[in-house]
Amino acid sequence: MSAGHCDRHPVLPRDRSELLERIRRIEGQVRGIGRMIEEDRYCVDVLVQIAAARSALDNLGMLVLEGHVKGCVAQALREGQGDEAVRELLEVVRKFLR
Amino acid sequence: MSAGHCDRHPVLPRDRSELLERIRRIEGQVRGIGRMIEEDRYCVDVLVQIAAARSALDNLGMLVLEGHVKGCVAQALREGQGDEAVRELLEVVRKFLR
Amino acid sequence: MSAGHCDRHPVLPRDRSELLERIRRIEGQVRGIGRMIEEDRYCVDVLVQIAAARSALDNLGMLVLEGHVKGCVAQALREGQGDEAVRELLEVVRKFLR
Amino acid sequence: MSAGHCDRHPVLPRDRSELLERIRRIEGQVRGIGRMIEEDRYCVDVLVQIAAARSALDNLGMLVLEGHVKGCVAQALREGQGDEAVRELLEVVRKFLR
Repeated sequence: MSAGHCDRHPVLPRDRSELLERIRRIEGQVRGIGRMIEEDRYCVDVLVQIAAARSALDNLGMLVLEGHVKGCVAQALREGQGDEAVRELLEVVRKFLR
Repeated sequence: MSAGHCDRHPVLPRDRSELLERIRRIEGQVRGIGRMIEEDRYCVDVLVQIAAARSALDNLGMLVLEGHVKGCVAQALREGQGDEAVRELLEVVRKFLR
Repeated sequence: MSAGHCDRHPVLPRDRSELLERIRRIEGQVRGIGRMIEEDRYCVDVLVQIAAARSALDNLGMLVLEGHVKGCVAQALREGQGDEAVRELLEVVRKFLR
Repeated sequence: MSAGHCDRHPVLPRDRSELLERIRRIEGQVRGIGRMIEEDRYCVDVLVQIAAARSALDNLGMLVLEGHVKGCVAQALREGQGDEAVRELLEVVRKFLR
């Protein structure tokens, strides 16, 4: 199941604007890393910024995961179709472990 | 920047354009995640893209780290000032562990 | 333990013996790392074994997480007490991200 | 190169006993996780302990990595054989990233 037949949309309008705001900030961080490379900045400073952008992506992922568990996974579990939802959830959590 | 007095610049021009190309691709990935949120796409698909962008940042980090170790750390070690460089290296590697 | 009032035990007897078998193997890996240190083995080989034990712990964690989501979280969601279970789940997933 | 021809042993006697002490503690943590499974303890508590053991392994890895960089890698770089040592270092750091 990669095209979730989940009709309770996990991203509410208010959450969506928060997510988009975070994404814009991450885009800015990534652009900033490009500028640091162009300006030949000290590489440890570049690495610190790369780690910060990665951490911001993790936080974004946790927010999306929260919406997903509260929305789609909860719905699937209530409707007795939880097995596939749980399998899919664990697979995506595992992607974040590496 | 606590030890940026490294005069053997770690980023060579050829490497720099490769790094910048990677950064542009990551920016594109992050923008794509924003579009997925706007289009209310299935959240597991969004999570997979977030994990992919995170992994691309890890790979970028490894490239910068390679330049740093071969450049600045190697120079510091040859000049007998390796302790600070090693301490700083381990600190930044640790940032990538979490 | 903040929400341990889950009466559908997540670990079934058959799963339990699999988990215990994995744990014994991980204990063996950790003891093996100790022997490598005592025998003054090459540190990169030691690091590779440490990374392998860490990865085995991740796999163990994923199994326990699966039982938890299918058991306790599913039960809590069905009983309308999902919010606390989801909050707790995300908190523990986050511990594995670092 | 998996059999490091590094004659400056990275693990000094004093460090060794600290490493062995840490390894014994990690073994105890892993055994404790086994007991929690046997006693059918709440799975979130088990997960927290697994994450703690994983984190202790990371810390152990960082200590071994420190000895390796200060010892073998520094020696290789001083002797003009740094390329292989750096390649190997980055490969093992990458194992800890995933």
